[in-house]
Amino acid sequence: MALQALVFDAYGTLYDVHAVMRRCEEFWPGKGMQLSQLWRAKQLEYTWQRSLMRRYMPFSSVTDDALQYACSSLGLALDRKKSDALLEEYVKLALYPDVRKSLDRFKTRKAILSNGSPDMLDPLVQQSGLKFDAVLSVDQLKVFKPAPEVYQLAVDRLGVAKEGIGFVSSNCWDALGAKSFGFRVWWINRLKVPVDRLGFQPDAIVGSLDEILL
Amino acid sequence: MALQALVFDAYGTLYDVHAVMRRCEEFWPGKGMQLSQLWRAKQLEYTWQRSLMRRYMPFSSVTDDALQYACSSLGLALDRKKSDALLEEYVKLALYPDVRKSLDRFKTRKAILSNGSPDMLDPLVQQSGLKFDAVLSVDQLKVFKPAPEVYQLAVDRLGVAKEGIGFVSSNCWDALGAKSFGFRVWWINRLKVPVDRLGFQPDAIVGSLDEILL
Repeated sequence: MALQALVFDAYGTLYDVHAVMRRCEEFWPGKGMQLSQLWRAKQLEYTWQRSLMRRYMPFSSVTDDALQYACSSLGLALDRKKSDALLEEYVKLALYPDVRKSLDRFKTRKAILSNGSPDMLDPLVQQSGLKFDAVLSVDQLKVFKPAPEVYQLAVDRLGVAKEGIGFVSSNCWDALGAKSFGFRVWWINRLKVPVDRLGFQPDAIVGSLDEILL
Repeated sequence: MALQALVFDAYGTLYDVHAVMRRCEEFWPGKGMQLSQLWRAKQLEYTWQRSLMRRYMPFSSVTDDALQYACSSLGLALDRKKSDALLEEYVKLALYPDVRKSLDRFKTRKAILSNGSPDMLDPLVQQSGLKFDAVLSVDQLKVFKPAPEVYQLAVDRLGVAKEGIGFVSSNCWDALGAKSFGFRVWWINRLKVPVDRLGFQPDAIVGSLDEILL
């Protein structure tokens, strides 16, 4: 079946989260890398754990909780002013350099499918000036990726069968969740890490959006 | 309601997983700590991701997959002989020093509730010589902790209402999953880390099983 739509993950795939690390480093010199890695790891853990516990909270809350945990764990003093500043970075992330030109090149329908709650995701997409046929958040389902119903949301909202949808993510587990669901999948391996061992393989592994050939 | 049963997590709670790290260090000097941390992190990630993907595989397979990933990620050559030896460590783990005496002290019914599949868990419990009223594995449910149906398994199999069950785990997310379900919960904070921010608090935080007072 010919590809009728491309669906993109947001954070780390289209939007570069590096600025968050830079801001962490600014607040706690020498600790920026360690803090942002622990923050990210806890952010993801909490999405999976809360989904399994059936205690969904919006990604903005989960992200805040993960930041509180990470700072507490590393013994870094975090006040409301600092946490607001760090969370604000998430709504003004830069695009990766390969994004704008690549999106123009793809003539299919295009959508975002993200863990981000609308309070984070909508202002981010708006400030970047990118145009999509749909910006879809897991928030309406109250469960996070890689639950299959999340990927089904793109099918339902785009009105395209799963076989006609290509999915692009820099998170291997997200790419493989989409593959398990039935999408055609490109994993953007920006960090040059091994494929996760979850019983599926991406259809293609690329270094950037430039390398996606339709 | 008076406590009628105590339910214990296995790995890291009753059984000390440190021997696995020691064996990693033996195979790859200087890398044991880093490897065992990444292995453990991936092992847990895969349980959560597979549960959400509805692609359950037994914990023994997930543990093997996580080891393969971790070695590949760190550039460590892993052959079948080494991986067999490492996985074998899991069925002969030692008990923490506080376990045997504490279990004798608890006069309630006692059970294990573990992610471990029977092929790993049953030989481990047997070789340790501990006696339980039930050794329960998530394997029969095909979903991992902290899904509520896992904790419900203890209710069903022990025939005790959730309000009469105390749950003990050294994994904070597991303790909080059990609390969210409705158990009375002791978190054994062996590593002196902060409480996870998942919307619940343990009923008690202790340093070891010795400190659990009924």
